[in-house]
Amino acid sequence: MRMVDIISKKRDGHELTTEEINFFIKEYTVGNIPDYQVSALLMAIYFEDMTDQERAAMTMAMVNSGETIDLSAIHGIKVDKHSTGGVGDTTTLVLAPLVAALDVPVAKMSGRGLGHTGGTIDKLEAVKGFHVELTKDDFVELVNRDKVAVIGQSGNLTPADKKLYALRDVTGTVDSIPLIASSIMSKKIAAGADAICLDVKTGAGAFMKTDEEAENLAKAMVRIGHNVGRKTMAVISDMSQPLGYAIGNALEVKEAIDTLKGEGPEDLTELVLVLGSQMVVLANQAENLEEAREKLIAVMKNGKALQKFKQFLENQGGDGSIVDAPEKLPQAKYQIEVPAKDEGFVSEIVADEIGIAAMILGAGRATKEDEIDLAVGLMLRKKVGDAVKIGEPLVTIFSNREDVEAVKTKIYENIRISDEAKTPTLVHKIITE
Amino acid sequence: MRMVDIISKKRDGHELTTEEINFFIKEYTVGNIPDYQVSALLMAIYFEDMTDQERAAMTMAMVNSGETIDLSAIHGIKVDKHSTGGVGDTTTLVLAPLVAALDVPVAKMSGRGLGHTGGTIDKLEAVKGFHVELTKDDFVELVNRDKVAVIGQSGNLTPADKKLYALRDVTGTVDSIPLIASSIMSKKIAAGADAICLDVKTGAGAFMKTDEEAENLAKAMVRIGHNVGRKTMAVISDMSQPLGYAIGNALEVKEAIDTLKGEGPEDLTELVLVLGSQMVVLANQAENLEEAREKLIAVMKNGKALQKFKQFLENQGGDGSIVDAPEKLPQAKYQIEVPAKDEGFVSEIVADEIGIAAMILGAGRATKEDEIDLAVGLMLRKKVGDAVKIGEPLVTIFSNREDVEAVKTKIYENIRISDEAKTPTLVHKIITE
Repeated sequence: MRMVDIISKKRDGHELTTEEINFFIKEYTVGNIPDYQVSALLMAIYFEDMTDQERAAMTMAMVNSGETIDLSAIHGIKVDKHSTGGVGDTTTLVLAPLVAALDVPVAKMSGRGLGHTGGTIDKLEAVKGFHVELTKDDFVELVNRDKVAVIGQSGNLTPADKKLYALRDVTGTVDSIPLIASSIMSKKIAAGADAICLDVKTGAGAFMKTDEEAENLAKAMVRIGHNVGRKTMAVISDMSQPLGYAIGNALEVKEAIDTLKGEGPEDLTELVLVLGSQMVVLANQAENLEEAREKLIAVMKNGKALQKFKQFLENQGGDGSIVDAPEKLPQAKYQIEVPAKDEGFVSEIVADEIGIAAMILGAGRATKEDEIDLAVGLMLRKKVGDAVKIGEPLVTIFSNREDVEAVKTKIYENIRISDEAKTPTLVHKIITE
Repeated sequence: MRMVDIISKKRDGHELTTEEINFFIKEYTVGNIPDYQVSALLMAIYFEDMTDQERAAMTMAMVNSGETIDLSAIHGIKVDKHSTGGVGDTTTLVLAPLVAALDVPVAKMSGRGLGHTGGTIDKLEAVKGFHVELTKDDFVELVNRDKVAVIGQSGNLTPADKKLYALRDVTGTVDSIPLIASSIMSKKIAAGADAICLDVKTGAGAFMKTDEEAENLAKAMVRIGHNVGRKTMAVISDMSQPLGYAIGNALEVKEAIDTLKGEGPEDLTELVLVLGSQMVVLANQAENLEEAREKLIAVMKNGKALQKFKQFLENQGGDGSIVDAPEKLPQAKYQIEVPAKDEGFVSEIVADEIGIAAMILGAGRATKEDEIDLAVGLMLRKKVGDAVKIGEPLVTIFSNREDVEAVKTKIYENIRISDEAKTPTLVHKIITE
């Protein structure tokens, strides 16, 4: 088999065989095929797309390129949630204890990410004492006993995907549905998921800027899931503005607590219920989405969801008392209001720019080496569609520095006020096949 | 300027600026841009094509990537001929003295090629004593005095093209009209051509398999020529069978002599007249193609063309007496006839396979290190459309080995005889703009 023939075959619009895909992924991973041939193939895929069979083969070839996590010792159907990424996205913090409260096993492997705020582990470390240094055995035992645990990323999962992603990033081949979809799905499958619940964000603050793109990606991932034997569903949700009010690590933990009590922001609560219902159904803990939703609302109301969060934090060394006394979370030195300069309705909150404002305060990392300030961040005081008067606070800045002029400027630049009231729809579509 | 932005721009179907093209060619040549980015761009060009302006810019960027030959000391318009390559293509040997006999300056830089028979220099070395080791000054003086000289390739011409070609070869990006056209044109321009006459071969034995492909390439090259200020014309000629009868170095020199006397094979003579007319017009030595053709026929008939060949050979140390006594050329030990096994009309002579048969005898090089046997080769005895009886010779093998069974087998496999007489058209089209 010669790589140049594989490139030419794809270039001419033909379907690659599973053997050809396995060959190039395997040989590329070990360094026998050079980057310059793979980048040419990636560009040919960008133009010629991949069939369902090719996408499934590509996904599994990447899974098989490295280690995989065996979660078979954990009872039940392990459902993993994946979000394509947004700003102020507190859903994982809420969903993990929420569905665990309904006996859906949540065996999560998580990392510290680059981004506007930290990754899930960073956020949880806002809780004093919390850690993810669990042995594999303890991790399995915790999930079997209490249904939820988070462990730090370890092992060499999907090395082919890592190599391919780095290459795509510098060769103009990132924006390709088959490449994005197989990349995401390979990571979930390598991490041991039996079933996968996808949150595909759409809008200005998301990677997919239009509903059509988001739907294409969602369908592609759901189809890959089905073709490789994993139950998979996707929600297309709005990221035209940040989700919830909190952007920042401790602030998001506080918001998660509120939401687990059923007292969270309307949009975050709704998204958590929609995604959570899917997870509960995927894990066979409810017959249908309606039943699942009712059960989720019940555990929010009766305190079981919050109790599960407390148990989860304490199981991993964290101070569980913060669920009743969130003021014990790291507190910023200064709270600075950003008052509206105009009257009308909030018409736009540019999500990624607002996220960058939070990152400037120290809530996120621009490079891997950056240290996160867990206390700082932003609390939105208005969302899109809200009426606002001159002088009313738009945002509260939580900062450990007094000088926040640059942050203020960025906020004013990215929150628009107009005469028209228009509230965005949160859940655009649910994709099940 | 970032290469990844240039790749994405082309990928999205936008026109690259001259600055962007200059940047990537220059930085790639010196090694500042890696192969894997360039191969992605080449594949994007394969799919998205290049505009006339991009093609011209690409050509000149490659010209400027290395040394260029300055032929300004030579009087008159220097016309270079280029063929996209075929089998038994003796045209250069004939054309150089033929148009020089009409005062068209032929200042040719030539090389030893890989292929079925040698390059132009190899063929000329079948003439005892002939060499191309001229100083630049002698070369210029010879062309100014006698209108024709050939010098060996030297200097680092179009290094960007060499690097790009090697990369295209292994990344499935060879068959791209803008890349082929700019590659050919850059080499001609770097070699100092004022005007360019192109012979684009079409058919089974050629790189371009169909008339449409050949016409696209021809038009692309002519347009590049005009856009960079070089008078350019192209002929689309048939390569569904070998040109002329001779395939082999000394055999082709002999055939060239016959043709210069007006006694050559019909197809070779016709192609030489068509291409030669173009060169004469491009060099302003005739008003139009008809006048040029008449003048060319005149110098064939009155012996001036052959005389010019003799002068040219002697100017470069060669034994000019061979033009009157071709038997002084290297002679093969054995002449073996290949008789027809069927009766009917020759319907196909697969040019490249017949070329390979000649290479097996030693007429050409498979690798750069191979030594050429100047005496050996094939003489076709029939061409497509000719009637043939059982036992009549199809081909005469000129060999220095007695055992030519493998060659015979290849010949039988690649010359077909059928009931239908059908002669291919030689000149398919002339492209002037």
